[in-house]
Amino acid sequence: MSAEIICVGTELLLGNIVNTNVQYLAQQLADLGIPHYYQSVVGDNPERLQQVIKVAQSRASILIFTGGLGPTPDDLTTETIANLFDTPLLERPEIVRDIAEKFAQRRRQMTPNNRKQALLPEGAEILPNPSGTAPGMIWQPKKDLTILTFPGVPSEMRRMWEETAVPYLKSQGWGEHIIYSRLLKFWGIGESALASKVASFFELQNPTVAPYAMEGSVKLRVSARADSEVSAIQLIKPVAKQLQEIAGLDYVGADEATLASVVGELLRDRGETLSVAESCTGGGLGAMLTEIPGSSAYFRGGVITYSNVVKTSLLGVSQEILAQLGAVSEPVAQQMALGVKEKLDSSWSLSITGIAGPEGGSAYKPVGLVYIGLAAPDDSVEIFEYRFGEARDRATIRYISACHALDRLRRKLLSDS
Amino acid sequence: MSAEIICVGTELLLGNIVNTNVQYLAQQLADLGIPHYYQSVVGDNPERLQQVIKVAQSRASILIFTGGLGPTPDDLTTETIANLFDTPLLERPEIVRDIAEKFAQRRRQMTPNNRKQALLPEGAEILPNPSGTAPGMIWQPKKDLTILTFPGVPSEMRRMWEETAVPYLKSQGWGEHIIYSRLLKFWGIGESALASKVASFFELQNPTVAPYAMEGSVKLRVSARADSEVSAIQLIKPVAKQLQEIAGLDYVGADEATLASVVGELLRDRGETLSVAESCTGGGLGAMLTEIPGSSAYFRGGVITYSNVVKTSLLGVSQEILAQLGAVSEPVAQQMALGVKEKLDSSWSLSITGIAGPEGGSAYKPVGLVYIGLAAPDDSVEIFEYRFGEARDRATIRYISACHALDRLRRKLLSDS
Repeated sequence: MSAEIICVGTELLLGNIVNTNVQYLAQQLADLGIPHYYQSVVGDNPERLQQVIKVAQSRASILIFTGGLGPTPDDLTTETIANLFDTPLLERPEIVRDIAEKFAQRRRQMTPNNRKQALLPEGAEILPNPSGTAPGMIWQPKKDLTILTFPGVPSEMRRMWEETAVPYLKSQGWGEHIIYSRLLKFWGIGESALASKVASFFELQNPTVAPYAMEGSVKLRVSARADSEVSAIQLIKPVAKQLQEIAGLDYVGADEATLASVVGELLRDRGETLSVAESCTGGGLGAMLTEIPGSSAYFRGGVITYSNVVKTSLLGVSQEILAQLGAVSEPVAQQMALGVKEKLDSSWSLSITGIAGPEGGSAYKPVGLVYIGLAAPDDSVEIFEYRFGEARDRATIRYISACHALDRLRRKLLSDS
Repeated sequence: MSAEIICVGTELLLGNIVNTNVQYLAQQLADLGIPHYYQSVVGDNPERLQQVIKVAQSRASILIFTGGLGPTPDDLTTETIANLFDTPLLERPEIVRDIAEKFAQRRRQMTPNNRKQALLPEGAEILPNPSGTAPGMIWQPKKDLTILTFPGVPSEMRRMWEETAVPYLKSQGWGEHIIYSRLLKFWGIGESALASKVASFFELQNPTVAPYAMEGSVKLRVSARADSEVSAIQLIKPVAKQLQEIAGLDYVGADEATLASVVGELLRDRGETLSVAESCTGGGLGAMLTEIPGSSAYFRGGVITYSNVVKTSLLGVSQEILAQLGAVSEPVAQQMALGVKEKLDSSWSLSITGIAGPEGGSAYKPVGLVYIGLAAPDDSVEIFEYRFGEARDRATIRYISACHALDRLRRKLLSDS
């Protein structure tokens, strides 16, 4: 008994998009303890899709499809599956009603081709799509074969997976022997440096510990196989604790924790507030902070000072200093931090000014030079200089600048308490 | 004649990493005009890998492997391929020398397991790896079947692809007929509505036209097969132009164009500037605008008014109105837009105030209710009310709010010119 993931979409074959759906589903299958040995990608072509399904059903008993459920003629997943199992498609009135309602809510006209999305093979159950118009299905076309279909839009697919597919799979007995993982997140340490500190943990059998690195952030996945989540957590906990102790302040948090959520919790616990002044990140730091629901409890807001005039008019940054030292300089970062803290009357503030590139660098101030200012409740300001290097692209420099700003505040709050 | 990509690695089955290699290779194959209909992922398991290769060689004549070339016992790609074609592995002295040199350069000791990487099937050519220790191979184990192998490390794989695989494939006659695509982007129209407007285009053979939808945005991919990029573009151009005309203002731009880049170009052409006042998006609109290099030419900055106090103190929003009507209301959106326009002295301004959820909604003001304000150079303000629905998650509501704000300004600038 194993599952196979089949992603349908010519855009995947043309390399137009990264297949994040398959990664999500792979993690979810691991969480449920469902073995999963193959993934296939095929275009919007019925013959080739049928061929993939034939191979897949010979080696797996659960086939999970993403993509090809839309209203257009090249969305062929449902009818191709139905044809392969010689089953007629039936229009489901409840789906037609649901689609009509969603169009009405969004004040748009339902077009005739949307009715196509209401067709499911006879005997298939509807897998409801609360956020979109393309429902999926759960269908057993024959003994020992279950088919689940999802649209390709990631947010719709994920919600349908969580709300309907997971309960269904659990009702079928999956999730009893589970693989449960905790993802430990670190900031401010490289993958190889962390790996050499914790090398002995990579030999463990249950839980296992495996590293991986992404854009500045390093993660360790601690995975246990057990009868229940509770027993898995018991296996994981002591190992996670040891890893956390070894990493010290470089450890950020586990699973859903982000630099922004950890900073938010620390501020909330202290009853303190934060404001931001952003230049090269242009609002990205504020966006990161406000990703967290309830962040209005501690985040007061900020100022995006993308032009020098605004640095002066809104935050009182000295025109002389801007003229003499330029916007990307230590004193400007300092004045931005103090200015926004005062204007927005917050306990703490962060400022960022830098050169995100690709243009605007010089020998003296290369692309990737970033100053971060951190103003404390007593109006003392610390300035941190980063040189992220000209090889990094604009998006990466902006992203890691905002992360480092949050990390500086995180470390300060932790060592301050 | 077509290619198939086979990615080997248990980490892909566990969902530990996103498979960016396959997207890169897919794009590269399209650029070379090599048809590519299937992608497969399989773990570090020789039996299952053999099974995948058997299926793949029955439908493709070029098999491209990534992963499983490393020195550890679970790196099995090369020997599994050799076994399947009953060919012995031979140690290549030039690879051993190359690995030894690289270890010496890095001042590390070469370990015995690295010699494993010097084994290639008899008759296979070395596909050199300039940046790592795992070389790949180019091998024709039988007539009409070519195998190329690459390590899984993206930077190594890409360099090997560009430096050796592309010249090799061109020497085999590929790259003469290329597939070239243009991606047309739309906003403000649903996938099904657009599809029914342009349905006749889906019948075209060269170029082909295919739709796909992502998070609020709808795209049409126009792909031509031709001898050269120039002739492909000649085929695409008239079709793209017709599609653009049919879509009217719903057409945003092609390829790299985004709502933010299009708005930026329009503002730059007019010599006008923009500022933003953000509540529920928390900086996301500013971040979108400043993703564009050179955006400082027209984007002055903004204010993130995440708390009501800041709406009043920085933007002069009336305390009475906040108390009576709440922050998520038409007059507040209006005062935010006017306030930031005046403070930052810009030609135009955009404001966003809404309920991103998951908390904070009520029967009267549900999650997903968003007001967007657009202030024009003459200080007239238009307000747009959106009800994105409680079904959408916080991240989506925030993202599409920022997109709709940009879209409103885009339409205004286009119809104003």
